[in-house]
Amino acid sequence: MSEESGEKGAQKPVVTFLGPVASYTHQATLSAFPNSTHTLTPTTTIEDVFASVQSGAAARGVVPFENSSNGSVVFTLDLFADVQAKYPDIVVCAESYVPVQHCLLGHARSDQQHATSLSSPGNAGGAGRRAGTGVIPSPLSSGAVTPTPSIPNPTKPTARPLSDLSRITKLYSHPQAWGQCKVFLNTYLKGVERQDVSSTSRAAQIVAEDESGESAAVSSAFAAEVCGLGVLARGIEDRVDNTTRFLVIKRRGDGRADGKDGADGEWKTLVSFTVDHANPGSLAHSLAVFEKYELNLTSINTRPSGVENWNYIFFVELKGRREEGTLDGPVNEALRELDPVCRSWRWLGSWESRLPQR
Amino acid sequence: MSEESGEKGAQKPVVTFLGPVASYTHQATLSAFPNSTHTLTPTTTIEDVFASVQSGAAARGVVPFENSSNGSVVFTLDLFADVQAKYPDIVVCAESYVPVQHCLLGHARSDQQHATSLSSPGNAGGAGRRAGTGVIPSPLSSGAVTPTPSIPNPTKPTARPLSDLSRITKLYSHPQAWGQCKVFLNTYLKGVERQDVSSTSRAAQIVAEDESGESAAVSSAFAAEVCGLGVLARGIEDRVDNTTRFLVIKRRGDGRADGKDGADGEWKTLVSFTVDHANPGSLAHSLAVFEKYELNLTSINTRPSGVENWNYIFFVELKGRREEGTLDGPVNEALRELDPVCRSWRWLGSWESRLPQR
Repeated sequence: MSEESGEKGAQKPVVTFLGPVASYTHQATLSAFPNSTHTLTPTTTIEDVFASVQSGAAARGVVPFENSSNGSVVFTLDLFADVQAKYPDIVVCAESYVPVQHCLLGHARSDQQHATSLSSPGNAGGAGRRAGTGVIPSPLSSGAVTPTPSIPNPTKPTARPLSDLSRITKLYSHPQAWGQCKVFLNTYLKGVERQDVSSTSRAAQIVAEDESGESAAVSSAFAAEVCGLGVLARGIEDRVDNTTRFLVIKRRGDGRADGKDGADGEWKTLVSFTVDHANPGSLAHSLAVFEKYELNLTSINTRPSGVENWNYIFFVELKGRREEGTLDGPVNEALRELDPVCRSWRWLGSWESRLPQR
Repeated sequence: MSEESGEKGAQKPVVTFLGPVASYTHQATLSAFPNSTHTLTPTTTIEDVFASVQSGAAARGVVPFENSSNGSVVFTLDLFADVQAKYPDIVVCAESYVPVQHCLLGHARSDQQHATSLSSPGNAGGAGRRAGTGVIPSPLSSGAVTPTPSIPNPTKPTARPLSDLSRITKLYSHPQAWGQCKVFLNTYLKGVERQDVSSTSRAAQIVAEDESGESAAVSSAFAAEVCGLGVLARGIEDRVDNTTRFLVIKRRGDGRADGKDGADGEWKTLVSFTVDHANPGSLAHSLAVFEKYELNLTSINTRPSGVENWNYIFFVELKGRREEGTLDGPVNEALRELDPVCRSWRWLGSWESRLPQR
């Protein structure tokens, strides 16, 4: 997904992304746009990314769209819904999948670096916690994997601490991360105070600033590198295949290439539409036009229309490509048939699939 | 939606609801189940409500399902998706719409009760804030409604403070509420520190405990009553029609009546299904069966299937009723045709619409 600049030797094109630095979106951005050929600029909100691309201040923007466990990012959907028509030229031109490998980050202590090779039963969790024993806890000693009548087959964590966790008294992370790391946290850090912060990378920054060594962050290995923290445990998420999908946006008509144009990869298209809710079957009719042209719908999302209560805007993603500058092709034909059936619709871009083939 | 007990003179049936006391869900529960005929029990999580109804500990449960501005409550959808088959008998049997009228709650001061009738320009927001002037700010004095190039027609808040807000230095609320009250908060409480808490009613409790009088909560008038707080401003949400829909759940087959059975009201049905994602058109085919029987789809929701990444479970809500104990009727016929087209499906209940007719 590297990008070729149309103007050789000109200023490096700007790519904005949802920050802060070291966020998962930053990772996605780096994988799509090498630092050396682009100026990467973090923003505070997803809306800032949309605004910078719409205004032309940035050539491309990168935003989170969907997590395999947590589902759609509704803030991003609402910006594509664009009720106030602030982003009329924004289209998707590429995507990027980033494995969300959560790590426990903290201040690594030189006196326990050897602990990595130990495996004796420890004292994590509950009343027995003592500071700085240098002993790595085992899941069997924590009580969290003991079968009970309500949970007869408790899940054991796949990850194990690489350091002693007994002095950790406070955890920082994004609220979504707690839910993705339940088993590890309940096994090794049960009862430890948790503080919600705005992003996993912000959590790493806070922990880096706390020199007591008693705080830890659920964040990424990338954030550990950027903030100079140690990795106390790696891959602590419950589902090892936890992945977030990011979309790259541009202004419609911006001809700079994204990806290997002309490759035989699969293409995806995003379309939004609204229907007349008073008209029975209008939603099914709208969806049927895609089937007629054998455009497989891969997902549907619904958001409040923002215009009237209990009216919705629908987002469909389908396998297929709309080429600009032509009226041919099944996507164009389906959109022509959609027009009289729905109330309004908008093409939100076509791009090459980056979903790893299995 | 009052409920008749099958056993006269027996113990009052238990209704669990997502607490705490004074939550919007509590309001929805009271509107459906009068306190005098039911034992209302708050729970900590939505999952607790499902578990208590599934186990039979509660006859009914009340959970939030959808907000007109913020969309679906994904936690509730995921419990209906029921990937681990923990709630196989749960069905929806009724619904309740509660207007979300946010208020600013705080300690009312006796020395400024007269302020309610004042209307002189005030000093809220920014550098001019002084403690306890007893003067009610006007929107024109705050700077927040000044037209700028990017916002040429700023929205003016529809609500005005009923008390002096100048001594408020900290706000508490649920994260969703900030986004629903943007205009009021940016006009009268710009720059005031905000603390996220787990619910709007919890925010009211915290403010009630803080006797300094410098904190305020974005919460409900109901919570003000329960916590003994004053209403400093009423109806501060941006959209006056902000409404949350709640669902009442029961065990399938529980014959206690919900609502006016046999009335000519409109019925709704909730169905979930999964499709074979490798089969093009399977989603459109599944949706087409409802159209064939003229069952108007009123909404679609999608959540990760929980089984495989980028596979989804779909929730459709349609106008129509499935009657238990018969195989007839359009909903039953549509479900029979859905069966061979989708991978799996589940009927999640039919109930009478409570959406106010316009």
